[in-house]
Amino acid sequence: MCELLGMSANVPTDICFSFSGLMQRGGKTGPHRDGWGIGFYEGRGCRLFHDPVSSIDSEVAKFIRRYSIKSKIVLSHVRKANRGRVCLENTHPFSRELWGSTWVFVHNGQLHGIKKYPLEFYHPIGTTDSEYAFCWMLDQIRSAFPRRPQKSVALSEFIYNLAKRLDDLGMFNFLLSDSRFLYAYCSNKMCWLTRRAPFGKARLIDEDMTVDFNEVTTPNDIVTVIATRPLTKNEEWTRMQRGTFEVFIDGVRQLQ
Amino acid sequence: MCELLGMSANVPTDICFSFSGLMQRGGKTGPHRDGWGIGFYEGRGCRLFHDPVSSIDSEVAKFIRRYSIKSKIVLSHVRKANRGRVCLENTHPFSRELWGSTWVFVHNGQLHGIKKYPLEFYHPIGTTDSEYAFCWMLDQIRSAFPRRPQKSVALSEFIYNLAKRLDDLGMFNFLLSDSRFLYAYCSNKMCWLTRRAPFGKARLIDEDMTVDFNEVTTPNDIVTVIATRPLTKNEEWTRMQRGTFEVFIDGVRQLQ
Repeated sequence: MCELLGMSANVPTDICFSFSGLMQRGGKTGPHRDGWGIGFYEGRGCRLFHDPVSSIDSEVAKFIRRYSIKSKIVLSHVRKANRGRVCLENTHPFSRELWGSTWVFVHNGQLHGIKKYPLEFYHPIGTTDSEYAFCWMLDQIRSAFPRRPQKSVALSEFIYNLAKRLDDLGMFNFLLSDSRFLYAYCSNKMCWLTRRAPFGKARLIDEDMTVDFNEVTTPNDIVTVIATRPLTKNEEWTRMQRGTFEVFIDGVRQLQ
Repeated sequence: MCELLGMSANVPTDICFSFSGLMQRGGKTGPHRDGWGIGFYEGRGCRLFHDPVSSIDSEVAKFIRRYSIKSKIVLSHVRKANRGRVCLENTHPFSRELWGSTWVFVHNGQLHGIKKYPLEFYHPIGTTDSEYAFCWMLDQIRSAFPRRPQKSVALSEFIYNLAKRLDDLGMFNFLLSDSRFLYAYCSNKMCWLTRRAPFGKARLIDEDMTVDFNEVTTPNDIVTVIATRPLTKNEEWTRMQRGTFEVFIDGVRQLQ
């Protein structure tokens, strides 16, 4: 099992506060010791950082926490290995290029029998179920849409259908981005919250840390955070129902 | 114009010393202010760090210099933009997956008319000639070899022929790796040196820094460093001739 963290915002925003909470779960307040990673989109590109050591001991994680990288879409993952040994190739996020955009994927769960699914264009570098599933999904998307469809709803519906199909193989909580949208599928555990004016204070669950978002935002900022479990104790997180799917752009939840 | 740095070694080796020299050229001893990047292979995966700011001012570069990441294959680049604006998408190294391995590419030069070449599988995320050429080369390799050929010489000859073809479009100094080999093509400027026992001291050209490799190596270590221009003043660098190609594995130059 693993824990996921995602962010969608309408202005480049740093994720230091939420990431501080998540990284505690990588060996301190949680058992997810088998590596971690994070991706920060900038345009169609994405800066990815991976470390196969536990986030609580990771020099790279300490650096990320200190050095505020601002982004409109972020995906992160702390890993507790179940399939695939602990090494760089098996460390999320996974990324591939499709339609000239970077796609990034993080997953929590197992998918029994996924490796019998045929792959065509994309092939896994490591040995996880997660990366295999990501390659298979991208293959399907690429076959169905040789170019990015003009109607984004056609794409999100297609992804939702792929997600439901794979969810039947086990457990498939994931976050995915194509550099424009952040897609979230809840197999059994995922929640989100949107922060917008009037902003207040938030306090982490996993660490003694509080931030007053009034001091670090402008009145127009909209920031949605998605996580396996709530990261703050004094805010209201929306728990996603099993088998549901959400799409966010610029911090805003899209109605489907 | 840009500067390139590569390393091939038979044991995981840090590149802090050479990287210290290269990063000075990103704004201090050289004009390459428009971003920099580095990739460290670990198995078939690669840790990539990109920063669209000058390496001399980059917090990420300072971190990399301090934090010794060991790898058998490293590729790095400091950029002086000529085609494509300064942004993350246009920052080398570029990477793509082929045959379940990460391929990484850095380039110095321009390629006039490259964007008229048709692309099939791989598409650029940014707007540089370099990434376009990388996508085209991977397309050609993929079409010619649906799977990794058993004879590595067939692959290296194929890459050499692609390189010569693109070199006709302008200037095409590049380093490329498929996670096993490090390929280097010299259009007009590239040099390399191999360090092995008995090791000695080396002194950087771009910074007042000396290392005694006796103290940081074992007698069996073999490390080849490839760069646009020599990085040290007291060692003998082999200058590659125009239009030549070299292949390194485990620090050792392959005879073709």
